[in-house]
Amino acid sequence: MTEPAKPLVRHFQEELEQLKTRLLEMGGQAEENVRLAVMGLVDRDHAIIDRVMKGDEPLNNLHIEIDNRCFTLLALYQPMAADLRTIVAAVKINTDLERVGDLAVNIAEAARRYASHAPVKKLIDIPRMASIAQAMLRDSLDAFVRRDLALAQAVLNEDDRLDALKTPIFRELLTYMLQDPSTIEPALDLILVSRHLERIGDHATNVAEDVIFIVSARDVRHHAGEGA
Amino acid sequence: MTEPAKPLVRHFQEELEQLKTRLLEMGGQAEENVRLAVMGLVDRDHAIIDRVMKGDEPLNNLHIEIDNRCFTLLALYQPMAADLRTIVAAVKINTDLERVGDLAVNIAEAARRYASHAPVKKLIDIPRMASIAQAMLRDSLDAFVRRDLALAQAVLNEDDRLDALKTPIFRELLTYMLQDPSTIEPALDLILVSRHLERIGDHATNVAEDVIFIVSARDVRHHAGEGA
Repeated sequence: MTEPAKPLVRHFQEELEQLKTRLLEMGGQAEENVRLAVMGLVDRDHAIIDRVMKGDEPLNNLHIEIDNRCFTLLALYQPMAADLRTIVAAVKINTDLERVGDLAVNIAEAARRYASHAPVKKLIDIPRMASIAQAMLRDSLDAFVRRDLALAQAVLNEDDRLDALKTPIFRELLTYMLQDPSTIEPALDLILVSRHLERIGDHATNVAEDVIFIVSARDVRHHAGEGA
Repeated sequence: MTEPAKPLVRHFQEELEQLKTRLLEMGGQAEENVRLAVMGLVDRDHAIIDRVMKGDEPLNNLHIEIDNRCFTLLALYQPMAADLRTIVAAVKINTDLERVGDLAVNIAEAARRYASHAPVKKLIDIPRMASIAQAMLRDSLDAFVRRDLALAQAVLNEDDRLDALKTPIFRELLTYMLQDPSTIEPALDLILVSRHLERIGDHATNVAEDVIFIVSARDVRHHAGEGA
């Protein structure tokens, strides 16, 4: 209840750096879980699938820790302007990364069901979607840490590429389902996986939009593609 | 860059009340869009479906306005303790409500495709899921405004009921798809709608968890169902 001592600027900057480091760690773990989940799907590897399904705990702990760090920074240092924007963005990015972790688990759940059926097809487009989504996640966090507007903008462009892959995947799988009812269940899981990957791209896009907001104090949300 | 004048407590409380009012308005609009999207699906009503698909703009504007209000409150008043928790929660709730609006649009998109096929079945469970999700949304926001822990907890319990409806819906639709390939495309859209509704429930759950955090300063995330 007592007022904090006068802001210790150096201490604040150290804490802010630590916050960014933890966000990068969380992003790295979330990305790794996505990579493993898709690997488990492609290789039909139950050990990897199980690892992702049970491996959500460290990410959930990081989520709570980072939230607490943001809250403490706001309460103790009462930051202004760019620092305030950075911390509020960190709260949101933290939420996005936690959802990415949840989506990795959802992909692993679909992979487990998929592995109980004969394979529908050789998986090429889904791993491609996954690698785009993973790169977007990595780039959006790099853009956050380095305050890199150009990189954040590049992430927004990549999202269009990711979304464009979804429809042909859906059409192809639908063709299999119509031709052979035994593919319906496994093809459904592939459709769900492609949608989970699309949503991971959406979360990376959210992060990139936050970066643009922090750096330029300009709100690009709901106006993507508009001129500067 | 200049320091703000000494906090005007009364002014701050007024601004905080306005913020809550705007969040309630946003929640009301998001809920209404969900209601309309599902009505459009059930009644195969293209006018209603189009209205939801084009009606996202007011919600997006509210999203930006509320974010700015939170940011201004943090910057000008540097609130502590419960007020700080409330505003950080408002930032998150705002994000959740915006996603609910996006999901209403996704439901409307599925409804439009669904209406271009013969109906698969009489829709009973999906409207039931929708009304549970809508009530969860309403209750979670009421719990936020009234700081009502019991109501927030009730929302968490409702989410289990919502999730439980998803699997029988999926099984039933799968049966149709296996028996008659002409139902595959429309049944797929119903499966997607049930997942969108499940996610709306997840967003209401996020709001309820934020309420519990604000009121009790206790973090229930990732520990749902644990004792107090």
